[in-house]
Amino acid sequence: MNFVYIAVVAALAAIVYGFYQTRRILKLPSGTPDMVAISDAIAEGASAYLTRQYKVISVVAILIFALMWYSQGLTSAVAFLAGAFFSGVAGFVGMNVAVKSNVRVTQAAKKGLSSALTTAFAGGSVTGLMVAGLALLAVSGTFLLTGSSDNFTPLIALSFGGSLISVFARLGGGIYTKGADVGTDMVGKIEKGIPEDDPRNPGVIADLVGDNVGDDAGMAADLFETYVVTASAAIILGQLILTGSDAAVSFPLAIGAGAIIASILGVYFVKPGNDKKIMPALYKGLVVASLVSIAIFYYLTGAIMDGDMRVFLTTLIGVVVTFGMVIITEFYTSKGYGAVKHIADASSTGHGTNIIAGLAVSMRSTFAPILLISAAMLFSYQLYGLYGIALSAMSMLSLTGIIVAIDAFGPITDNAGGIAEMTNQPEKVRKVTDALDAVGNTTKAVTKGYAIASAGLAALVLFASFTEELEKLGVSIEFSLSDPKVLVGLFLGASLPYLFGAMSMEAVGKAAKSIVEEIRRQFRENKGIMTGKSKPEYGRAVDIVTRSAIKEMVAPALLPVIAPILVAFVLGAQGLGGLLMGVITTGLFVAISMTTGGAAWDNAKKFIEAGYLGGKGSDAHKAAVTGDTVGDPYKDTAGPAINPMIKVANVVALLLVPFLV
Amino acid sequence: MNFVYIAVVAALAAIVYGFYQTRRILKLPSGTPDMVAISDAIAEGASAYLTRQYKVISVVAILIFALMWYSQGLTSAVAFLAGAFFSGVAGFVGMNVAVKSNVRVTQAAKKGLSSALTTAFAGGSVTGLMVAGLALLAVSGTFLLTGSSDNFTPLIALSFGGSLISVFARLGGGIYTKGADVGTDMVGKIEKGIPEDDPRNPGVIADLVGDNVGDDAGMAADLFETYVVTASAAIILGQLILTGSDAAVSFPLAIGAGAIIASILGVYFVKPGNDKKIMPALYKGLVVASLVSIAIFYYLTGAIMDGDMRVFLTTLIGVVVTFGMVIITEFYTSKGYGAVKHIADASSTGHGTNIIAGLAVSMRSTFAPILLISAAMLFSYQLYGLYGIALSAMSMLSLTGIIVAIDAFGPITDNAGGIAEMTNQPEKVRKVTDALDAVGNTTKAVTKGYAIASAGLAALVLFASFTEELEKLGVSIEFSLSDPKVLVGLFLGASLPYLFGAMSMEAVGKAAKSIVEEIRRQFRENKGIMTGKSKPEYGRAVDIVTRSAIKEMVAPALLPVIAPILVAFVLGAQGLGGLLMGVITTGLFVAISMTTGGAAWDNAKKFIEAGYLGGKGSDAHKAAVTGDTVGDPYKDTAGPAINPMIKVANVVALLLVPFLV
Repeated sequence: MNFVYIAVVAALAAIVYGFYQTRRILKLPSGTPDMVAISDAIAEGASAYLTRQYKVISVVAILIFALMWYSQGLTSAVAFLAGAFFSGVAGFVGMNVAVKSNVRVTQAAKKGLSSALTTAFAGGSVTGLMVAGLALLAVSGTFLLTGSSDNFTPLIALSFGGSLISVFARLGGGIYTKGADVGTDMVGKIEKGIPEDDPRNPGVIADLVGDNVGDDAGMAADLFETYVVTASAAIILGQLILTGSDAAVSFPLAIGAGAIIASILGVYFVKPGNDKKIMPALYKGLVVASLVSIAIFYYLTGAIMDGDMRVFLTTLIGVVVTFGMVIITEFYTSKGYGAVKHIADASSTGHGTNIIAGLAVSMRSTFAPILLISAAMLFSYQLYGLYGIALSAMSMLSLTGIIVAIDAFGPITDNAGGIAEMTNQPEKVRKVTDALDAVGNTTKAVTKGYAIASAGLAALVLFASFTEELEKLGVSIEFSLSDPKVLVGLFLGASLPYLFGAMSMEAVGKAAKSIVEEIRRQFRENKGIMTGKSKPEYGRAVDIVTRSAIKEMVAPALLPVIAPILVAFVLGAQGLGGLLMGVITTGLFVAISMTTGGAAWDNAKKFIEAGYLGGKGSDAHKAAVTGDTVGDPYKDTAGPAINPMIKVANVVALLLVPFLV
Repeated sequence: MNFVYIAVVAALAAIVYGFYQTRRILKLPSGTPDMVAISDAIAEGASAYLTRQYKVISVVAILIFALMWYSQGLTSAVAFLAGAFFSGVAGFVGMNVAVKSNVRVTQAAKKGLSSALTTAFAGGSVTGLMVAGLALLAVSGTFLLTGSSDNFTPLIALSFGGSLISVFARLGGGIYTKGADVGTDMVGKIEKGIPEDDPRNPGVIADLVGDNVGDDAGMAADLFETYVVTASAAIILGQLILTGSDAAVSFPLAIGAGAIIASILGVYFVKPGNDKKIMPALYKGLVVASLVSIAIFYYLTGAIMDGDMRVFLTTLIGVVVTFGMVIITEFYTSKGYGAVKHIADASSTGHGTNIIAGLAVSMRSTFAPILLISAAMLFSYQLYGLYGIALSAMSMLSLTGIIVAIDAFGPITDNAGGIAEMTNQPEKVRKVTDALDAVGNTTKAVTKGYAIASAGLAALVLFASFTEELEKLGVSIEFSLSDPKVLVGLFLGASLPYLFGAMSMEAVGKAAKSIVEEIRRQFRENKGIMTGKSKPEYGRAVDIVTRSAIKEMVAPALLPVIAPILVAFVLGAQGLGGLLMGVITTGLFVAISMTTGGAAWDNAKKFIEAGYLGGKGSDAHKAAVTGDTVGDPYKDTAGPAINPMIKVANVVALLLVPFLV
């Protein structure tokens, strides 16, 4: 049991690191008053959005709390609330640090790249380690307070709370950020011909707020949730399969603890070298964190699992998958490689061919990750059965701290660039933030690949827990593909990511439409805005996207809650099992194709903007902008939100187990 | 056994009908010499394409013939060749009638709508009944010549031959037709600003050839294959499950025979009423054929299956699914309904929003068909187990004759319109052909929905045959979702439609590029073309797309042959079973979303062209054209080719069974 306490300590260490780093950031100079004013406006908008989002989620959470209390007892209901609360905190903290760091990065950029990168990455590392720390704390705490070998409901309830809030946060944030982005660009860039982040655009603050609530708070909630679900499922599987073994329970938490320490260490290795290259600086942190983690995993295997090398190898698989996903995603989304160039080339013959090429890339990009996940699954199963898969997934997720740190610096620099633009900073400042921003785009795509691969493994572990739970309660079902109920469940489950994807893309369209009308109205009614004589009402635009995003997020977010219940009711356990695997299967494909395809479209546009095929303003560029517009809801709304959605369906199924018996 | 002979007779009746109707069509007046010249050029191009396509396929077929002879014996090898040959004949006949009918429809259009519709539909009905007749003949003939209750390999080999050729034909034809279409439009409409089907465009004949080799020959091969596979699988399942029952074998063939007679009858009911409405005239034929079929099915249930009402109900389910798919597809693709209007509206805000709306519609449109297929599966299984599902699928496919007739009149009228345009026929002629063409677009989409739903059911029946075959040979495997090998197989199988889709979309891009360069070259080197002084070299354009399409079709078409063999080798029967279900699952979603989404994009463009949102030439129209361009390879290349691709994978698996034991 000692290692569970160690997990709690490591989790607290991560949180302490977060507070310490935040204090350091706050002490940094925040620039001129006009910079601070904009930063404050962003902070205010982001806060307003999150407050309203959490308010709506609270209503849902309280309803479910009551239902859980009634059906599963008070302990589980409280665990559910804890999961929901911690997920909220993870998102909230991440966003708060981001909105404080952004202006300081702009200020630091005046001193040069190195200083700006360090500041931005410090902000990102707070989010990263807070997410990992809070997640590990939630799981180990719940286990300590409620754990016993025959009742996992509190852990499942905790996961449910985390997942449910995450699907709302990911989706709401995603709708907000892309609705604001697309809408603001549509009037600003296309209709009025003013540059991005131009202070005359009434939607510009809303757009900057979007980076924080979507790419930061949403992403943080997503990774928090994946971590909690994976750790919980590993514990549950450990207890169910290796019955009564304390080690099986401690080990997943111990590797979580070890990787947190390694991640904190890794953070300090992120410094640009003499060549001033940003990406290698970030990857240095990841490599150090991974190597230290591997060493710690080796030690822990000896200390907890009697030095069973099969166990150590499963953790190694998790690290390999992490790096594999980084490489694959880079291959499909980086400007240097074929896929992006192919889309860029196709832009020269028009909008249609750009889209066809992008869709083809997005579909093709699913193959390598699936191969990697499949191989990881087979090998870890070979090594240690279902528990082996759980350990690989846990090892992969244990690196959340450093991975999220590398990602979360992106939206901060994006904001920093916006502030620089709006306050007319000299060219060299903007150049620094632009360089950081470009790297942020790639790391964003990489994290999404990582998140989806880990979500796939996590979902498989959840599915295994589902079957094992049923077995424990005396219901032994072979979920056979020859059973029509399983098949129908599989088909219906497979339809959910499609339906969810369609709904979220349409939601972005609606949110964008709402802000387009507001921006047009302001330009029309206040002629002084375009001449720079009067300030636009940023707050109203923020408010309108907020309302639209929150309204649109509810229906799709409830889909993975309601569908499993309905299918379980109509088709029983067989249908439900099929549904889970169906959601995982198409979920993986839809999510990977959307996030990778979207990033490839984005970078094809950037590639052309860098001067290829006529550069900015050419016909090829116009076609590439169309691709980027399509890629936006693909990669930042629908695609990533499928992650938590897959897991909500699986966790709901776990909660339904007692009723299936 | 009597009913097997009756099937042969009915099949021959359909073929006789085809010849009789062809002779009647040939006797109709074919118009002025310039009309005939164009029609001949189309016929020549189509023939040249098909000849070359079949030549390439022959090489593959002979290789596989040798392999089959070596591994499965001469009988099966011959059956394989027969399947391949008949599939080729179905495509060839369909195309030949089409290229003879087109000019006669243009001529008939001078007399008015009624006359043109009758002529076009007569041409379509030849294709329809030839496909159904040849398919039924192939299956019943093979069964009569080789059938015994313990060796199904010849039937499986026949199916393999049919499926393999179909995947080539569907894909090659699809790449040809869309490559030519997109490429010709890109230079003609966009760069030169000349109308569609303008005789000055060197690609115009290639475009018209495309309608025949893609929408006609390709589609005919596809339906032929689905029919053969379904009937064969029903026979195999019947023998395996209801061992030794002659009735179980005769019944699927008997309903095939009955529905052929009903379809011939139905054809004579297709006549426009006084309101001159085309769609209701076509549906009248379908409704009559269906009602007569139902009556015959009822009689046959009494005569063969001891009046077992469960059997009759399964056949009824097949008819219900057919009509269900017709209604669902109409709902998502017809101009009158919300989905198309939604895409049209989104076009007003630009290319990007058109694409986002279209993608959302395409994803959403999968849900209702999946629900329908799932319900059909559950109910028929409830009624008569796996054999029940087989009967529903067979009943659905027995209507092939009339369904294909309704579809195949589309490309004929499309050609007729092109000939009218190229020979400067008076406005009223073009108006008649346009009206028929518009309806043809909808029926094309409807047939694709029908083909995919039936392919889904057929694939499930094949999967059942696969497991039953294994069982018969003493290998009883539960394809359990808890088995990692099954899961990995499922994931890998699920990746195939994605990979296949990506490859086929890229193939269209390449084919289009090749013809673009050729058309540009002709315009550049021969200035007389644009002024109308000299004739373009149509033949060279035809030749270039032909070569490009044939080159590009090979790799994706071999994917479903090679993947199952590899997976069986590495992961064994479990992996292979998972792979099959994976292909079926994502295959259904990818195919439905692509064909429905593509048709919706197409009709959204037509909706705007009819005057909505500013009509032709408006910005909304330009955005809608982009959507249509994307929809082209979606709906006419990648989407429909997934049908035979799913089944090739499943049939290959059946052939692998002896090696898995």
